[in-house]
Amino acid sequence: MDISLPFDPAAAWLAGGGPDAAIAVTSRVRLARNLANHNFPTHPDQSDRSSVLSDVRNAFQSLPDGDGYTWCEIDRQSNLERHLLLESHLISRELADGTGPRALAFNPAKSISVMVNEEDHLRMQALCSGLRLKDAFASVDQLDNAIASRLAFAYSPLFGYLTSCPTNVGTGLRASVMLHLPALVMTSHIEKVFRAIYEMHMAVRGFYGEGTEAMGDFYQISNQITCGRSENDILADMEASIKAIISYENRAREELLERERPRLEDVIWRSWGILEYARQITSEEAMRHLSNLRLGVVTKILDSLTLESIQRLLLLCQPAHLQQIEGHNLESDERDIARATFLRGSLSLTR
Amino acid sequence: MDISLPFDPAAAWLAGGGPDAAIAVTSRVRLARNLANHNFPTHPDQSDRSSVLSDVRNAFQSLPDGDGYTWCEIDRQSNLERHLLLESHLISRELADGTGPRALAFNPAKSISVMVNEEDHLRMQALCSGLRLKDAFASVDQLDNAIASRLAFAYSPLFGYLTSCPTNVGTGLRASVMLHLPALVMTSHIEKVFRAIYEMHMAVRGFYGEGTEAMGDFYQISNQITCGRSENDILADMEASIKAIISYENRAREELLERERPRLEDVIWRSWGILEYARQITSEEAMRHLSNLRLGVVTKILDSLTLESIQRLLLLCQPAHLQQIEGHNLESDERDIARATFLRGSLSLTR
Repeated sequence: MDISLPFDPAAAWLAGGGPDAAIAVTSRVRLARNLANHNFPTHPDQSDRSSVLSDVRNAFQSLPDGDGYTWCEIDRQSNLERHLLLESHLISRELADGTGPRALAFNPAKSISVMVNEEDHLRMQALCSGLRLKDAFASVDQLDNAIASRLAFAYSPLFGYLTSCPTNVGTGLRASVMLHLPALVMTSHIEKVFRAIYEMHMAVRGFYGEGTEAMGDFYQISNQITCGRSENDILADMEASIKAIISYENRAREELLERERPRLEDVIWRSWGILEYARQITSEEAMRHLSNLRLGVVTKILDSLTLESIQRLLLLCQPAHLQQIEGHNLESDERDIARATFLRGSLSLTR
Repeated sequence: MDISLPFDPAAAWLAGGGPDAAIAVTSRVRLARNLANHNFPTHPDQSDRSSVLSDVRNAFQSLPDGDGYTWCEIDRQSNLERHLLLESHLISRELADGTGPRALAFNPAKSISVMVNEEDHLRMQALCSGLRLKDAFASVDQLDNAIASRLAFAYSPLFGYLTSCPTNVGTGLRASVMLHLPALVMTSHIEKVFRAIYEMHMAVRGFYGEGTEAMGDFYQISNQITCGRSENDILADMEASIKAIISYENRAREELLERERPRLEDVIWRSWGILEYARQITSEEAMRHLSNLRLGVVTKILDSLTLESIQRLLLLCQPAHLQQIEGHNLESDERDIARATFLRGSLSLTR
């Protein structure tokens, strides 16, 4: 097993593509699991954390060679390194900013990552570009089976998998799709869509998952119900609902193109102008403009960029990645200047 | 006397230049005069308006040939033509949007213009670029003497020249300087300067004079006191006060350049980016960004533009001039698109 850090952001999902990639940025399925006969991570007695860590590590080491997982102990990483992992969507803010023995394992394509000692002993996730919940589930299900054959999971015949928070009990499955919904925001239909999402028993989360803010019109939609239904039923329902939201966004885009093309072009080209010329820019503002550029690419108003290049810029202009590029720590206002310089240079290459 | 319309905006003041041109855009001196033995224009009995008009016209026609004044009867002009004159600072909003017999006379350089039957029978003004109140006064004083030798003005030995509004009685002189004060706005010192201006018995007016709004950090500063002092004393006081404001703005610019250069460059280059890429833009927003470009030119952050080119763009992107360029009337939203296209084309020529 390789022990290193993923500073190369070339995760498979960054390439974009997949079904409905114009709107569905990524699909993610994660399974929450806990080891039987150990205190859960949220238990006041934290003495089991180290043994859980070594048990999980041993299980990963015994996987067939070809899986090539990287093992990364989070409490040994610097603040910058932890935030690189967070920005790459490999770990949660809770794992990045937590304390005590905790780890991350991820495969070479960075399409599968496993958090150890986050809210549950194991949080296994698979991430794909586009709307591909079934593919994501198939990947993580395979890993789940491999680990289950090596470690005993806390399981109740009545409830299913047991988890720290009751909202995960049962399948332990949370499926989420990152949707890019700029046209629904521009046409002021987004609140209506949010209400429909809640009625369909799904939740809207921010760019870095639970408890984070939506940025640049990117929204993570995820299932709320984990118990009393099979994984396949949950995923089929999710996919149908997500497809409905995608069709609303598509309709809003068509409406904008037909009836408000000058306004749409204006918004997109202004964002280009600001990214090409700004001398200091926050990551929130950069994301807002990159989001508009993404809409420009899919509506063919912009032809000098690709979805992949925008996805890379979205990742690389985040605080930790930016400091990684610059090679040293930067204060917030220095980052805003470095970010503007980086984005300006990147866009000027495409002219 | 030539009878035509000034659709060519090539007024002498547009060239910029003159003392303190980096801050003082234009200096204007106007004299209010009324003909003796005629009802003033604000009198309920309007029957004198036509005879005033013809008396004044005869006076101008009897001026030596070299003066070459153009005579323009405002009530015969279209709405577009009246607003072209307003945007060119040749007439006031009151004359443009008024009713009844009223006229404008202006010299070939468009540096001297005379409104007939505005609030007073005669409003004679001279306009120069830079801080040149004495030059402006000398020009209009010469015309005043020439007209006074042909027409009898309403004059009281006790009060001086009599005017419709008591605030103009005495000299009938209003001197005003259009100042560009972006650094005082950016450093939040502008309110303090306004208070000082009021204490010095001067007024701050908007871009098109009394009752109009300030736009793009351009402020017209003018004297309040017209009576009990000589013209030269009023002008000398004005000039000293204006020079003080100019030194505050200069200090604010130096402060920005020394301590907040990234912010200053950011503001200026973002404005460039928006003007280069926007697909629709209101005249207020265009002025705001052109104002920032003007600051960029004088601080040498921008080197591909001149003060003159910005001054021309400020004029040509106004609603009436824009419609004149396009060759037909445009609704407000059509103007916003045409304005963005015009500005984009103009800026791309300078790259």
